[in-house]
Amino acid sequence: MPKATATLYGYHRSSTSYRLRILFGIKKIDYHTEVVRLDRGEQHAATFKDINPMGGVPVVRIDGRTLVQSPAIIDYIEEQYQQPVLLPDDPDTRQRVREITSLIGCDIHPVNNLRVLKRLRAEHGFDDAAIGEWYRHWINTGFSALEAMIDNPTARYAVGASVSLAEIYLVPQIYNARRFDVDMAQYPALQSIDAQCAKIDAFRDAHPDLHAPSE
Amino acid sequence: MPKATATLYGYHRSSTSYRLRILFGIKKIDYHTEVVRLDRGEQHAATFKDINPMGGVPVVRIDGRTLVQSPAIIDYIEEQYQQPVLLPDDPDTRQRVREITSLIGCDIHPVNNLRVLKRLRAEHGFDDAAIGEWYRHWINTGFSALEAMIDNPTARYAVGASVSLAEIYLVPQIYNARRFDVDMAQYPALQSIDAQCAKIDAFRDAHPDLHAPSE
Repeated sequence: MPKATATLYGYHRSSTSYRLRILFGIKKIDYHTEVVRLDRGEQHAATFKDINPMGGVPVVRIDGRTLVQSPAIIDYIEEQYQQPVLLPDDPDTRQRVREITSLIGCDIHPVNNLRVLKRLRAEHGFDDAAIGEWYRHWINTGFSALEAMIDNPTARYAVGASVSLAEIYLVPQIYNARRFDVDMAQYPALQSIDAQCAKIDAFRDAHPDLHAPSE
Repeated sequence: MPKATATLYGYHRSSTSYRLRILFGIKKIDYHTEVVRLDRGEQHAATFKDINPMGGVPVVRIDGRTLVQSPAIIDYIEEQYQQPVLLPDDPDTRQRVREITSLIGCDIHPVNNLRVLKRLRAEHGFDDAAIGEWYRHWINTGFSALEAMIDNPTARYAVGASVSLAEIYLVPQIYNARRFDVDMAQYPALQSIDAQCAKIDAFRDAHPDLHAPSE
């Protein structure tokens, strides 16, 4: 397969953009980023909604296609760029990986998404303290379940003996948790996996601090 | 492949349980339901959390396995029980189906989930009016995007010329929208697809009204 190149419409602190930066690194797909300044509301511009009617990031252009919805994009990349395998064929292992990506992608992340927090502030009077409490509640609920599911305080990976899609979802979610002062000492398995991933170039290179807009 | 039987731990009005009832009907998988009374908090019981650490429904037992997280369960069933195909192989069609399931499964449903509404009421003083406004806002945001993505007011199916996973997610979400008085006349494509699905036994047989607990 020829070396692919991609365009990522994203934002450094968007954890779904962060997932894709890690994924491109692992799959060795060259990409460049078109920054969509969520802090300036650029995702709501009519020109951007022509690309993604939901008005969010990430959006990816690759293989002559325009892809939206980060879980769908991740599945596409995994199927079209198969090496290294991040979603194992074995049904039991495959299911465990998907249970973790689904828990993070559906049960934790959406409830703490920027558009939700903005609405809680603008329409329902949440202040910083209320937002922080809301944010930590949903992370703690989800992380407690993940810790029980992984059930190994010295785990190097969430499932099996190598990186899978589970870490692609988990590491950005842990980054978010730390930004909102979640006490990660409660989650030794998650911390252990995060520390292992921090040794891997694709995870290090994708860190939001390295992708902040210059202006 | 021998005829499969499954156990569905679910609740009639849980839209993720509703997805699975439709899916089992289409795939002709016999199942029986173990009712988990969300209205009585049975999902939080320690015995149930041993099955699913997140403490939610649906949970499925099939093929000697216990599966949690509805998107992961749906992907498992689609891969293990391949007829009829609900996730087409063609990359473009496949991606469109997944964009729709991801938009509903990640952007609409989680923000309006029972546990979120309960917390808004209990911790943040939302009354019925505020809950209704919250609920309709997220459905309208997502449905407006779906209507634009489908872009055909007389569509029979969301993608292509037959049922796909898109309808498995869409029909229960429309049921929820109606329960919360969303004006569906704004979404002719979604209404048209819903009317088409109402002609199909697997969709009719899965309707929550037919699965309410007797006591």
